[in-house]
Amino acid sequence: MALERARAEGTDVRMVVVGDDCAFTKPGKAGRRGICGTILIHKVAGALAEAGASLDEIEKKAMAAAKVMGTLGLSLSPCSIPGSKPSFQLAEDEMELGLGIHGEAGVRRMKMLPADKAVETMLKHMTDPSSASHLSLTPGSSVVLVVNNLGGLSCLELGIVAGAAVHCLENQGIRIARALVGSFMTAMEMAGVSLTLMLVDEELLRLIDAKTMAMAWPNILAGPATTRREEVPAPVEPPRKPEDETGTGLSMARVERVLQRVCSTLLNMKEKLNELDRGAGDGDCGHTHAQAAQAIQEWMRSRPPPAAPAQLLSSLADVVLAQMGGSSGVLYGLFLTAAGQSLRGRSDSAAWADAMDAGIEAMQRYGGAAPGDRTMLDSLFAAGQALHSLRSPGADPVQVLAAAVQSAEAAAEATRHMEAGAGRASYVHSSRLEQPDAGAVAVAAVLGAVLEGMRDPLGTQ
Amino acid sequence: MALERARAEGTDVRMVVVGDDCAFTKPGKAGRRGICGTILIHKVAGALAEAGASLDEIEKKAMAAAKVMGTLGLSLSPCSIPGSKPSFQLAEDEMELGLGIHGEAGVRRMKMLPADKAVETMLKHMTDPSSASHLSLTPGSSVVLVVNNLGGLSCLELGIVAGAAVHCLENQGIRIARALVGSFMTAMEMAGVSLTLMLVDEELLRLIDAKTMAMAWPNILAGPATTRREEVPAPVEPPRKPEDETGTGLSMARVERVLQRVCSTLLNMKEKLNELDRGAGDGDCGHTHAQAAQAIQEWMRSRPPPAAPAQLLSSLADVVLAQMGGSSGVLYGLFLTAAGQSLRGRSDSAAWADAMDAGIEAMQRYGGAAPGDRTMLDSLFAAGQALHSLRSPGADPVQVLAAAVQSAEAAAEATRHMEAGAGRASYVHSSRLEQPDAGAVAVAAVLGAVLEGMRDPLGTQ
Repeated sequence: MALERARAEGTDVRMVVVGDDCAFTKPGKAGRRGICGTILIHKVAGALAEAGASLDEIEKKAMAAAKVMGTLGLSLSPCSIPGSKPSFQLAEDEMELGLGIHGEAGVRRMKMLPADKAVETMLKHMTDPSSASHLSLTPGSSVVLVVNNLGGLSCLELGIVAGAAVHCLENQGIRIARALVGSFMTAMEMAGVSLTLMLVDEELLRLIDAKTMAMAWPNILAGPATTRREEVPAPVEPPRKPEDETGTGLSMARVERVLQRVCSTLLNMKEKLNELDRGAGDGDCGHTHAQAAQAIQEWMRSRPPPAAPAQLLSSLADVVLAQMGGSSGVLYGLFLTAAGQSLRGRSDSAAWADAMDAGIEAMQRYGGAAPGDRTMLDSLFAAGQALHSLRSPGADPVQVLAAAVQSAEAAAEATRHMEAGAGRASYVHSSRLEQPDAGAVAVAAVLGAVLEGMRDPLGTQ
Repeated sequence: MALERARAEGTDVRMVVVGDDCAFTKPGKAGRRGICGTILIHKVAGALAEAGASLDEIEKKAMAAAKVMGTLGLSLSPCSIPGSKPSFQLAEDEMELGLGIHGEAGVRRMKMLPADKAVETMLKHMTDPSSASHLSLTPGSSVVLVVNNLGGLSCLELGIVAGAAVHCLENQGIRIARALVGSFMTAMEMAGVSLTLMLVDEELLRLIDAKTMAMAWPNILAGPATTRREEVPAPVEPPRKPEDETGTGLSMARVERVLQRVCSTLLNMKEKLNELDRGAGDGDCGHTHAQAAQAIQEWMRSRPPPAAPAQLLSSLADVVLAQMGGSSGVLYGLFLTAAGQSLRGRSDSAAWADAMDAGIEAMQRYGGAAPGDRTMLDSLFAAGQALHSLRSPGADPVQVLAAAVQSAEAAAEATRHMEAGAGRASYVHSSRLEQPDAGAVAVAAVLGAVLEGMRDPLGTQ
């Protein structure tokens, strides 16, 4: 119609029909539908026009480009034209293959599959040589891939489909020259995706890459020229001597003993901590701490823990950050990182007092809680005060630690009468808080376990 | 945590806390949440770093930028963490104001409002001076507006909200320096939107505009520098003489008579055509034609129709294209455009035969149907063949038209026994098609009405 009107006004106009739909395996009189691949033809034609190509050349090249691409849609839901009912019905566990973009149903309904299997099914349908509308792909082909949100898919889902498509194509030896992921041609709120593949040579790729004023065109050019993701190499652990004695009198065996004590203590307390937490939080404090304990045990099984205090605390921070979960995981991670940092290159007893202070300071700074707020900080802070005695010349580290454990236990018990000033418990009224704070109790128990591990003579276990 | 870890590795790192959430009217100990405005801070800090600014300067300017912005979310649905149930419950007719981005519920639940009222409510909440977390906006302020899809909103809905936000802000005298619309910070599949406003000066705007490698950053720079939409001026109709006689013996009065006949005929046939269509299509053929008739009547009331044949058919094409709907509207539009084009600068009777052929050719070319396919083309084609007699010297146009109408009526009747080869009826098996094709009947009736209008002596009506 536009062509006829423009011609009636004396303008030279050409028509290129895009039929990229790969849904129908037998040709119909109406011909193939033009779906998301259309945007690539717009891009190619626009880039040619911008470069000053003649109308003849643009028509010829756009037609050629339209012949080397295919698209297929898949959806978990229909869509609704505003004011109308959904355009078709789909059960919760079904998905629909081969949709158009006007809300019409597809060509095949099937049970829902995981994303990678669904993508595999789509690509197989698109490239099946027995289908009249298939796209011929051979290993070594270069393609532009478009992963198009049909409207209601979340970014996470779209990314999962895109990842599966890249993986599946690369496994078939296809080179993905460019990948465009986004909402390019949608069918209202349809929770589905379409995949478009266009076979490209150097010239087509240049046209796809050409600068554009289209606001929604992704910045594919700005990024690196390859879509091949770089694997982040796993950090290489430096080899360690079997008996890595440190100046603080800690041996690897001692470190392992202490950590085992801490872990078994936390695992034994799981139900008690959950119970304490139920009155004030969401009842998972024991679960979170048990998770940390299991992660530490597994870590120790995989390699001997470093005995140098700075590395030990820093490694423990990695473990709890990755596996403990909850705000507790982050707060312990902050504490251990700052404390470990403070221990760097030091081997005196006073260093542990400074490390405790540094850890507490970091936890307070980022967590926003202060002593008296009914949190894990209460017992930690009390212990830290007691550890200051390590700075006195001639102090016995184990005796000082024993005093610190006592202070921590008393502080934990004292939270029973406190109103919560931070953390999740702050949403609960104080009259309902009749138990000590679970986090504070856990910290006192951890310190108690450390003390036991230090007292336990090596070799008696 | 990242800061602590990086510092532990000896890297100088600063922390800028973004708290752009405008949901809470009273300050809480946990502070304001950082939501979608965060992307603007990333952009500002990134652009400064790219330009070689010092870490001190970046920290200072990012902090300052974070202080002059606000964000508020609104949703029609909760979201679901994969494997979990939805994070909160919302009735069909409710919406939730002031959400975070982790799926948590908002601060206020209300009955659903139209988009413009909802946006007004959001902006009012965001800028309410009595709220501790409000953003101060005064007429004349320049802002960057971010309209952010919380995950499951369709492009259409997002665009409606964006339009409403632009309209509402401009009405308050706010200048929208840039508008970013897209999925920038989402909460899984939450069907909601957030609005972010950042007060900008020239420097901040330069940083927002700076080139970036971020793939999802919209091409805002590439477009025109202003967000003010240009109104397309309505076409100005050239003044016409009251009696615009043409060489074909048509007067304005005659043209109006013919068109009135056509319109009243179609309006009278509405139910009959719907009934015919029900057996084969979706039963709206009469409705579509009646819509065209009403549109033509309204158009004639607003201005006298042009009597020059080329302009007359071209104007009618405009009317049916804009208002008739359905594929019929497009096909009639194609027919009238091509026929009108063929009549340009001609005033002989034979011109009408050529015009009919040109119209039929256009309809066939784009519609894909041929005579015998049980469509409107059957009666149109039969009439066209009969009109060829207009090319014989001395032929009486009205007699030729009468013969054409007879041919069209016979052809329409003959569709009763045809199998459908195109159009919607091609999906229905021929044994169920016992009536003539509604479109073919309509075409014959239109031609019959034209004949009556031509025969009707002027002045007797």
